[in-house]
Amino acid sequence: MTSAKYDVLGIGNAIFDVLVQTDEGFLAAHGMTKGGMALIDEARALAVYKAMGPATEMSGGSAANTIVGIASLGARAAYVGKVKDDQIGKLYSHDIRAAGVAFETSAASAGPATGCSYILVTPDGERTMNTYLGAAQDLMPDDIDPAQIAASSIVYLEGYLWDPKNAKDAFLKASKIAHDADRQVALTLSDAFCVDRYREEFLQLMRSGTVDLIFANESELHSLYQTSDVDTALGQLRKDVRLGVVTRSEKGCMVASKEGVVEVPAFPIDKLVDTTGAGDLFAAGFLFGLVRGADHKTCGKLAALAAAEVIQHIGARPQVSLKELAKKSGLPV
Amino acid sequence: MTSAKYDVLGIGNAIFDVLVQTDEGFLAAHGMTKGGMALIDEARALAVYKAMGPATEMSGGSAANTIVGIASLGARAAYVGKVKDDQIGKLYSHDIRAAGVAFETSAASAGPATGCSYILVTPDGERTMNTYLGAAQDLMPDDIDPAQIAASSIVYLEGYLWDPKNAKDAFLKASKIAHDADRQVALTLSDAFCVDRYREEFLQLMRSGTVDLIFANESELHSLYQTSDVDTALGQLRKDVRLGVVTRSEKGCMVASKEGVVEVPAFPIDKLVDTTGAGDLFAAGFLFGLVRGADHKTCGKLAALAAAEVIQHIGARPQVSLKELAKKSGLPV
Repeated sequence: MTSAKYDVLGIGNAIFDVLVQTDEGFLAAHGMTKGGMALIDEARALAVYKAMGPATEMSGGSAANTIVGIASLGARAAYVGKVKDDQIGKLYSHDIRAAGVAFETSAASAGPATGCSYILVTPDGERTMNTYLGAAQDLMPDDIDPAQIAASSIVYLEGYLWDPKNAKDAFLKASKIAHDADRQVALTLSDAFCVDRYREEFLQLMRSGTVDLIFANESELHSLYQTSDVDTALGQLRKDVRLGVVTRSEKGCMVASKEGVVEVPAFPIDKLVDTTGAGDLFAAGFLFGLVRGADHKTCGKLAALAAAEVIQHIGARPQVSLKELAKKSGLPV
Repeated sequence: MTSAKYDVLGIGNAIFDVLVQTDEGFLAAHGMTKGGMALIDEARALAVYKAMGPATEMSGGSAANTIVGIASLGARAAYVGKVKDDQIGKLYSHDIRAAGVAFETSAASAGPATGCSYILVTPDGERTMNTYLGAAQDLMPDDIDPAQIAASSIVYLEGYLWDPKNAKDAFLKASKIAHDADRQVALTLSDAFCVDRYREEFLQLMRSGTVDLIFANESELHSLYQTSDVDTALGQLRKDVRLGVVTRSEKGCMVASKEGVVEVPAFPIDKLVDTTGAGDLFAAGFLFGLVRGADHKTCGKLAALAAAEVIQHIGARPQVSLKELAKKSGLPV
């Protein structure tokens, strides 16, 4: 194993977020499942957007948010994702590069527009996402640069990549290159409905060792093992993957490995504004801890800190330096 | 005078805001004058944007922000401004219509892209704007619909309209139609540097009765009359225009008319985050009070309330219903 150029490289659907604060009635009127991520086509995107109030726009995309968080903590990060070379794609490319992330995936010159997620944030802070994948549908195995993957300590992948038609091949290609270079591969299960769509494939990825580390929230874990009993699910998770990190919102997280289960409390917050990006930034803090060689408890604390920052404002990217924030809290950066 | 379909119609440069929180060093490194609005060409826009950190995007434009504020207070509002039919122009058109504003100006199908302002917000909350006018340069007298102007109680215009080459003709056309229909015309002086560019023309608009009401902050007023003595300037203002409203940031405002000068304090805030839109939302509250027939003191209180809301978050558009906010403060809506 040669020394790594990047600490973490993320691969995901490059999605621009269009965020609106709304009420519960809007979700009901438009048949949206609160807290979920629904894939929508262009016609539905137009209809949802037309019905929405005035919005705030910000770059998003699950793995991209994680990677930006890792860069904000001070690690070397890279991202692979597909935008189109349209105005929104240019905003997206700017933002991720301006965050200090290496982003070299070529933008599509034809085909659908840069993907957008229409995100409804209700007064309780919960976010409901309606995602038009757009150009993200065209992420191909050729977009994976073997040298870049082999030069990254951890490759981080999102379960959402199972939705576009060719991205899973890109995912598998990246995993193989990473393991051949003696690197680690992490996967977030992304969303309980996503897990429901691809349960057997995700279990296969875990059991075959295609992924070494899993991030999941409780509902994704329950969906994966089709059980509402958390101990049963955790027991399975510990058998199926080397390291499993389960987030539990304000109850903190559980880090499950062969050695046992470590619990870490959530980080205190003043006010929950918008949960968009909570899981993404949690993963950022945890992965950052891992690449710095921290123990699981410290990884969990860094994760909780990063998640706490992002849920106290609108949007899924950190608004302050996470490195400074971690320093102030006495965490190692 | 027939009954009005709109309470206030605004005409301005339709500008999409790209906002970044940064430090003083960035302004210095790029030769920016803090607190000002600098017009930039496409090459400079690209250079500034490339140097900026990750951004948040939101619709803006001075008069448009005012009009959105007026709609948020519950009045009937319309806007005239030029975007291109590109992705950003579509976001812009969505936002203003979703705010309840009538917006019927045709989008340009050719020519420059929708205008953008690259806004640097420093830790003290001050904003420094770098504006690429883009499609706003192509606002023409033909974009003024005489019937719509004649059906609006107040026509509100921004001094920034003197920058694009044909917009001043659109402005003068609108003012004539409004006065012929026995309506009122209001103008914001926009920016001290803008006043410096067009001082004689602005004074001529006031002295000829082309405008009936002026909004200015202290530095714009000093620039207009080239004096640092506020009493001298106020005395001039009272001679030159029927109603002059001078904003003084945390010191509140002064409403100057032939009858005298009424002072109104600023509205208390918890934390200054971003002054972008402060003057725009102040004008919104004041104009709303006027169309509701409130006295000048009440107009000033409504103005202070709306300005206080917008400076406590990033971006120049209100994030809550100003009508509800005014109700809670016991102000008439």
